[in-house]
Amino acid sequence: MSLLVVGSVAFDALETPFGKVERTLGGAATYFSVAASYFTHVNLVGVVGDDFTKSDAAVFKGRRIDISGLERAPGKTFFWAGRYGADPNERVTLATELNVFASFQPKLPEAFRASRHVFLANIDPTLQHSVLRQISGKPRMVALDTMNYWIEKTPAELRTILAHTQILMINDMEARMLSNEHNLLRAARHIFKLGPKALVVKRGEHGAMMVHDGGIFSVPAFPLEEVHDPTGAGDSFAGGFMGYLSSAPRLDDGVMRRAMVYGSVMGSFAVEKFGLERIRRVTRREIDTRAKHFYKLTQFKL
Amino acid sequence: MSLLVVGSVAFDALETPFGKVERTLGGAATYFSVAASYFTHVNLVGVVGDDFTKSDAAVFKGRRIDISGLERAPGKTFFWAGRYGADPNERVTLATELNVFASFQPKLPEAFRASRHVFLANIDPTLQHSVLRQISGKPRMVALDTMNYWIEKTPAELRTILAHTQILMINDMEARMLSNEHNLLRAARHIFKLGPKALVVKRGEHGAMMVHDGGIFSVPAFPLEEVHDPTGAGDSFAGGFMGYLSSAPRLDDGVMRRAMVYGSVMGSFAVEKFGLERIRRVTRREIDTRAKHFYKLTQFKL
Repeated sequence: MSLLVVGSVAFDALETPFGKVERTLGGAATYFSVAASYFTHVNLVGVVGDDFTKSDAAVFKGRRIDISGLERAPGKTFFWAGRYGADPNERVTLATELNVFASFQPKLPEAFRASRHVFLANIDPTLQHSVLRQISGKPRMVALDTMNYWIEKTPAELRTILAHTQILMINDMEARMLSNEHNLLRAARHIFKLGPKALVVKRGEHGAMMVHDGGIFSVPAFPLEEVHDPTGAGDSFAGGFMGYLSSAPRLDDGVMRRAMVYGSVMGSFAVEKFGLERIRRVTRREIDTRAKHFYKLTQFKL
Repeated sequence: MSLLVVGSVAFDALETPFGKVERTLGGAATYFSVAASYFTHVNLVGVVGDDFTKSDAAVFKGRRIDISGLERAPGKTFFWAGRYGADPNERVTLATELNVFASFQPKLPEAFRASRHVFLANIDPTLQHSVLRQISGKPRMVALDTMNYWIEKTPAELRTILAHTQILMINDMEARMLSNEHNLLRAARHIFKLGPKALVVKRGEHGAMMVHDGGIFSVPAFPLEEVHDPTGAGDSFAGGFMGYLSSAPRLDDGVMRRAMVYGSVMGSFAVEKFGLERIRRVTRREIDTRAKHFYKLTQFKL
């Protein structure tokens, strides 16, 4: 079933202990849609500048990604430059140039309005809301990401869109900031009052946790000897999660748990190489093999 | 089968966001032996001062803990005072008074020398080594804890005892310091060259990870709404782990995994109340129920 993603498409300059790239395609919607396309059909809405070339668009080709909602605006594409330390959590932002993204007004092509699953990547909550208003009917599932900036600057707008959200997917720091609770279970209870029925907390090298009516489910990060580039891990996680979920006939606890695992699988592939290099070339067979590795990593008998 | 623990018995003064105690019995060997006694018989070796009363000793009564190796020395018992913030990882040491612990020379009662399982809690590696030399025959399993102080100050002595250790149980910071590797898989590979066949990394609120020939196993921390007192969590984990393992007829990967779960169970109980309050009163039934909760927390089907 169709999955809509609205978010950033960007060029990234990245530096990690394993190397450096001057300009590689990135952005939340990019990582998300590539990751999700292994599981379902994805409708992408975003904006790029006139520096976005055919070869940049090649990453979307030959996949189940419809980029008819990828608007082209005069000016330059969103640009982000960052550096990571030996500890992947130590991220320094060197540059953020919004460029065409600064005046982005998401417009859903007619065909996208029937999307049954929606992922609102981390953008202005007012824009996230405008996306939902363009959807016809009630979607089966709306998931949302946000960040400290919106939690602080636009709390009212964020609350409005949260009331329409079923799954909130944020990191632990954001969960704490949004709820004013250090403890993540208490944070979840606070967040459920705002609308979401499920909280998915992305914890980087510590894995991910889901709290919902079905209980609590925890999955570790996949142990890798080398994390080449942490960029996009969270969005790839979201892509695997929502991609799997969108393809499932029912939405029960078992499906949600598997979605957590497939999200973790895609996040783990994303960080193995720079930019999209790994997740654009992974095979469905490799995805299923890694899911089995997650099984081996966590299962026990009593 | 018998399990020997050698380590500190102490009085703690504790302050957390949930309260304050002026003086409560603690110490690594205390938490360890209480936790392990739910699974097996424990031989305890340690030292206390003349301020250690009968009512202090009551915690060991009525359990499978032999305290004939708990030496009584003139002077005061080891004293530690600490404060924790809302984030349980933020620990401030307010006072450390070694007292009788400063001149501790572990002496194993004759009956303890046949102990088949040994846990060397965090003390001077030279003392840890002297304990092993008092053991008759080759123990079935030797596990060891250590800390940044010994890693920095006595690296040669630590290497000597590591050569006789099968399981190293430390936290992530210590694993990184000992191996000079940020990545925990690389840290494990480095540590295996020093002797241990298994590395168990205690990660506090992020759970625990085991790396050994059977592969990698990861278990999350039990999600609790309130962590009243994080003191002793790691030693209670070690007690549950080694206690379960000592009671197992075989030492295979399945047993090691369950040991990780029972360790996590005991660590999770330890932090629910101040000092030993919770783990001294927990029942075997509650332990098994929580193990099932860990199962529910982590299991999925593909």
